[in-house]
Amino acid sequence: MIDACRHEVVGLVIEVGSKVRKYKVGDRVGVGCKVGACHTCENCENNLENYCPKYILTYNSVNYDGTKTYGGYSDHMVANERYVFRIPDNLPLDAAAPLLCAGITTYSPLKYFRLDKPCMKVGVVGLGGLGHVAVKFAKAFGAVVTVISTSPHKKKEVVGQLGANSFLAAMGTLDGIIDTVSAAHALVPLLFLLKSHGKIIMVGAPEKPLELPVFPLIMGRKIIAGSGIGGMKETQEMIDFAGKHNITPEIEVIPMDYVNTAMERLARGDVKYRFVLDVGNTLKTALSFSPRLCFQNIGLEVVWHGHVKRRI
Amino acid sequence: MIDACRHEVVGLVIEVGSKVRKYKVGDRVGVGCKVGACHTCENCENNLENYCPKYILTYNSVNYDGTKTYGGYSDHMVANERYVFRIPDNLPLDAAAPLLCAGITTYSPLKYFRLDKPCMKVGVVGLGGLGHVAVKFAKAFGAVVTVISTSPHKKKEVVGQLGANSFLAAMGTLDGIIDTVSAAHALVPLLFLLKSHGKIIMVGAPEKPLELPVFPLIMGRKIIAGSGIGGMKETQEMIDFAGKHNITPEIEVIPMDYVNTAMERLARGDVKYRFVLDVGNTLKTALSFSPRLCFQNIGLEVVWHGHVKRRI
Repeated sequence: MIDACRHEVVGLVIEVGSKVRKYKVGDRVGVGCKVGACHTCENCENNLENYCPKYILTYNSVNYDGTKTYGGYSDHMVANERYVFRIPDNLPLDAAAPLLCAGITTYSPLKYFRLDKPCMKVGVVGLGGLGHVAVKFAKAFGAVVTVISTSPHKKKEVVGQLGANSFLAAMGTLDGIIDTVSAAHALVPLLFLLKSHGKIIMVGAPEKPLELPVFPLIMGRKIIAGSGIGGMKETQEMIDFAGKHNITPEIEVIPMDYVNTAMERLARGDVKYRFVLDVGNTLKTALSFSPRLCFQNIGLEVVWHGHVKRRI
Repeated sequence: MIDACRHEVVGLVIEVGSKVRKYKVGDRVGVGCKVGACHTCENCENNLENYCPKYILTYNSVNYDGTKTYGGYSDHMVANERYVFRIPDNLPLDAAAPLLCAGITTYSPLKYFRLDKPCMKVGVVGLGGLGHVAVKFAKAFGAVVTVISTSPHKKKEVVGQLGANSFLAAMGTLDGIIDTVSAAHALVPLLFLLKSHGKIIMVGAPEKPLELPVFPLIMGRKIIAGSGIGGMKETQEMIDFAGKHNITPEIEVIPMDYVNTAMERLARGDVKYRFVLDVGNTLKTALSFSPRLCFQNIGLEVVWHGHVKRRI
């Protein structure tokens, strides 16, 4: 049992409980960051289980039955169908996995803060697992996308491979910014890139408070907001949108026994842009190599099995 | 010439230029914080002259003709009719004056951030010139209003005189907060008072940056925004709304020769809630007492005269 278990899990359904209506054995499915919530509060009633104060995380949380949740580092997983998503046939399972967190984390604020309209000028700060998916969704919505990064060497891949329109924004030109950076950083330069009434949406969570200058907010009626993943209904909508527009995150599939090396590479930012761990095909081999695994056997309504792939 | 000239000016029209269509001699009018803008940018075209990057402030700014603007500490003033507002007959001129800044500064964000719906739960932080008007507008919109103040002795007047519903908010209960405090203060306790998707709108401008904790923003998709006065069309709408609902700020009318004492009282927060300076009736007397006066003679299209009242 370890803490590294995470939350972008994909696989095939191997068994369904008696109350399951949405899935049958063999379906290609995924589970994201959450596996439960109260289902009675205003947020749950509005399909925003992600903002329910009693949500249950896919890992390191306490499940309905009092057991601990362990995420997807396992050869099978059991989950309530409300928290299970159908992966469209045209999306490879492994490449679809990061949609379940990185995808919805960037798709949801683009929609909610109305940056999903054609010709919107959208900035994306930070080009990692979240940022590169934000670029893809914003482009698919028809936005003019600028990547804002402190790594000038990324310019070629940003504009070429990911399809962003530019790597530099002029002052007062952006309708909104998706800020994916989870390290401390300055907001003032970002605020100056916004048009009046523009919005910065923070989806990375710096540990310490950032400095918020109030006057630049007031002068242009600007907004700084936060957004955390999305509701289950919207997550399925996002996956279907990704299927329709053939959007998949850039991934590197790795076997279980590579996990410690992958963690070291992650620490120095050496991945484009998500590692996906092939648990289903490599779990047994890995058992003899690494203690960084966990299993679970919680009692809900959907079970799937085999080719479980996880990003780390 | 001094810097204290400000921007909530009321009086009677005494002369109109040849292009003036909206006003005639004798009309009861006011001028707020701005007296000009570019009239060609997107903000100006959307009646948001207040966010035009080339706006001209009512005082301490440079006017169209290159002269300096001096605000309302004068026995007359000349202004473009676009920046002049009609005061409804049922509102006393002196009590209407603070609507021109405090009024629109609080009315505009309540509207823009959709806190103007009946039964919205609105918090008002800080109970000064801005805050007490925010309470009146929010109540008139049908909101349930809580005043959040560090001065417990204000409770009686807040609930009794101003009509607020309460003086203490419970965690997770507010749809939005109008934060009028211009001193450094903590945002975390305010963020916790908000429901999910709630909004803090800053209308006071602390000089130094505030500490912005990002995680509480993300967890509830919360927003921190700024808002600065309002456009000219919306300012007239706000004044008409105040007329219809008989909303007037609480004021203390003072003569010119009281201005230095008033400044001292202001510094220790000893005013409920706005001083209004009766320039028209007391200007000549004051000339022999105080150097804190300024005059202006700028060349635009509306002139009014007499009973000019200003808040400080």
